[in-house]
Amino acid sequence: MESIKVFCPATIANISCGFDVLGVALDAVGDEMVVRKTKQKGIRITKLEGQDLPMETLQNVAGVAGLALLTASDYDGGFDIEIYKKIKAGSGIGSSAASSTGAVWAMNALLGKPFSTLELVKFAMEGERLASGVAHADNVAPALYGGFTLVRSYQPLDIIEIPSPQDLYATVIHPQIEVKTSDSRKILKTTLSLEDGIKQWGNLGGLVAGLFKEDYALIGRSLEDHIVEPIRSILIPGFDAIKAVSIENGALGCGISGSGPSIFSFSKGKNTAEKVGLSMREVYDKIGIDYDVHISKINVEGIKVIA
Amino acid sequence: MESIKVFCPATIANISCGFDVLGVALDAVGDEMVVRKTKQKGIRITKLEGQDLPMETLQNVAGVAGLALLTASDYDGGFDIEIYKKIKAGSGIGSSAASSTGAVWAMNALLGKPFSTLELVKFAMEGERLASGVAHADNVAPALYGGFTLVRSYQPLDIIEIPSPQDLYATVIHPQIEVKTSDSRKILKTTLSLEDGIKQWGNLGGLVAGLFKEDYALIGRSLEDHIVEPIRSILIPGFDAIKAVSIENGALGCGISGSGPSIFSFSKGKNTAEKVGLSMREVYDKIGIDYDVHISKINVEGIKVIA
Repeated sequence: MESIKVFCPATIANISCGFDVLGVALDAVGDEMVVRKTKQKGIRITKLEGQDLPMETLQNVAGVAGLALLTASDYDGGFDIEIYKKIKAGSGIGSSAASSTGAVWAMNALLGKPFSTLELVKFAMEGERLASGVAHADNVAPALYGGFTLVRSYQPLDIIEIPSPQDLYATVIHPQIEVKTSDSRKILKTTLSLEDGIKQWGNLGGLVAGLFKEDYALIGRSLEDHIVEPIRSILIPGFDAIKAVSIENGALGCGISGSGPSIFSFSKGKNTAEKVGLSMREVYDKIGIDYDVHISKINVEGIKVIA
Repeated sequence: MESIKVFCPATIANISCGFDVLGVALDAVGDEMVVRKTKQKGIRITKLEGQDLPMETLQNVAGVAGLALLTASDYDGGFDIEIYKKIKAGSGIGSSAASSTGAVWAMNALLGKPFSTLELVKFAMEGERLASGVAHADNVAPALYGGFTLVRSYQPLDIIEIPSPQDLYATVIHPQIEVKTSDSRKILKTTLSLEDGIKQWGNLGGLVAGLFKEDYALIGRSLEDHIVEPIRSILIPGFDAIKAVSIENGALGCGISGSGPSIFSFSKGKNTAEKVGLSMREVYDKIGIDYDVHISKINVEGIKVIA
C-alpha cells in the first residue's frame, strides 16, 4: 500500500467532571487526509484545504506529529500529506488533534503497523504541543482509540478505553467567536476546595459507571462540573441559555467542549439530539451570533480508512 | 417473623483516590445483631457484647438509626436489639456503620421491607451523625448494598453500585493505637491544587473502569491518592513500611481505611492477600505495635441473615 485516505474525527475533551482526563470521538464531523509514501525522506504538507493554516512541516501539527513517528521508525523514505480540513481551527472540538492523529495513524498503516495505538498517541501529542504549548492527550486519545477515553495518568501515559452506550448522541454548537486557548487557560484557578474536588471525582466515577452500565440517567446526573465550567463559561456568550434549553429539550447534560467556545450536549437518541440542536440554534439566532451545529453519534472506531 | 439475626459487615471507606465517595464491604469481619419485635414502643439495646459502648438508645448508633426508621414507619410497636461487636470501635473499618445498618436492615426485614435500600442508607446515616458528627454515607452504603459503592452526590443522595471482580481480596491491618476521627479530620487541608485534583479524578475514573473491566492491574495502578494519604498517613505509625511491603508482596495497592488507623491492601487471590498479611505483621512485630489482621473476600451481599 503506497497511499491511504482517512477520516479523522472531531473530539470533545474536558467532558464536564472529566476536565483534562475524559474525551470522546464524534462521527459526523472530521477532517480527511491523504497520506502517500515517498522515496524522498522527510514529510511535506502538499495540500491544505478548508482552513488557513501553515503548510511548513515544522509549523503544521500533522507535520510535527508525523516527524515524531518518522524519527522513531526505521523507514528510510518519507511521506506527502494532503489535508482537507472540515473542522474549524479554534472551535474546541479537536481540530489540531484530528490532523496530528490522522497523519500518524495513516503513516503507521502504510508502514505495516509497527507502532501500538499508545505509541501513536505519544507521537500525536507532539502536534498538540505545537498547537497549544502543552502536549495534552485528551483529544488525540479518543481520535485514535474511538469512543470515550480516560487519560488516567501522564507519567507514565495510561489511556483507558471506556465503552459508550449504543444510543448516545452528541449535539455540538460552535459559536463563531474566537476564544484563545491561552486566555481560557489563564482564567482557570490553580486551586480548588476539597469540597468541590470530592463532588468532581464523585461525578467522574458516576459518569464512568453510567457509560459502563448504559445508564443514561446516571450519565446525565453525573455531567456536572463545579470547578472549570463556572469560570470558563463566562467567555462563551449565551452559555447558560444554551445549557438551559438543552436540558429543557431532553439533553442528558451539557458543557464546554475542550476549552470552548463550542458547547456540547449528550442525548439519548438522534431525535432528541436534533431537537436539542434546534433549541441551541434559536438562542444564537436571537443573540445574533453565527454558529455551526453538529449532531453526531459517538464514533467508536476512531480514525478510519475511506474510499 | 418476630426476630432475626444478621451479620453486619465491616467496610473500607475513603479507598485511596475515592476519598469521601468510594467504599466496599468485607466478608470475613463484621458484627452480629439480633433484632426482636416488641409490643412496647421505642427501641432498646438489651445486650451489647464485645465493646464498651453506650447502651442508651439515644447514645447508641443502632438506637438512633433505628429510631429514624421507626419514626418514618407506621408500625406501632418497637424493637429490642442485641449487639455482638466483633469490629473494634475506632478501627477505621466502619464499626459504627455496621451497627447502624444492621439495626435498620433487620427492622426493615421484620416489617416486610417497606423501605428501599436508599431509604435505609438515610436512616443509617443518622447513626453516623451520632458517631462522628457528620452524616456520611461512605461506610453505610457498602454495608447495605454490598460490594463497592460510590456516593456520587449527597444533595440529592445518589448511590451507585460498582461491580467487584471475583478474585479480589482485601487485607486489613489494624494497629492498636487510637486516632481520633476529629484529629484525622482536623489535619486535612481544605484546598488542593488543580493538578492534584486532575490526578485524583483520573485515578478514580481508572479505578471504577478497572472494577467494571475486572482489570486487576488497572485497579492497582489507580489506587493512588496524592491528596489525603500523604497527610493522614503521618498519624499512622509504620504506614510507609506497611505500604511498601504490601506492594513488594504482590498487593495491587494499599491505602488508609476510612480515617485510619487501619491500613488496607487489595490483592488478586487469597494466597497473595495472605502473603501480604504476613508481611504487614512483620512490620508491626518489629516496631512492637499490637495489631489485628483481617483477610477477606469482597462481600457482595452486604448484610445477611444468619442462623
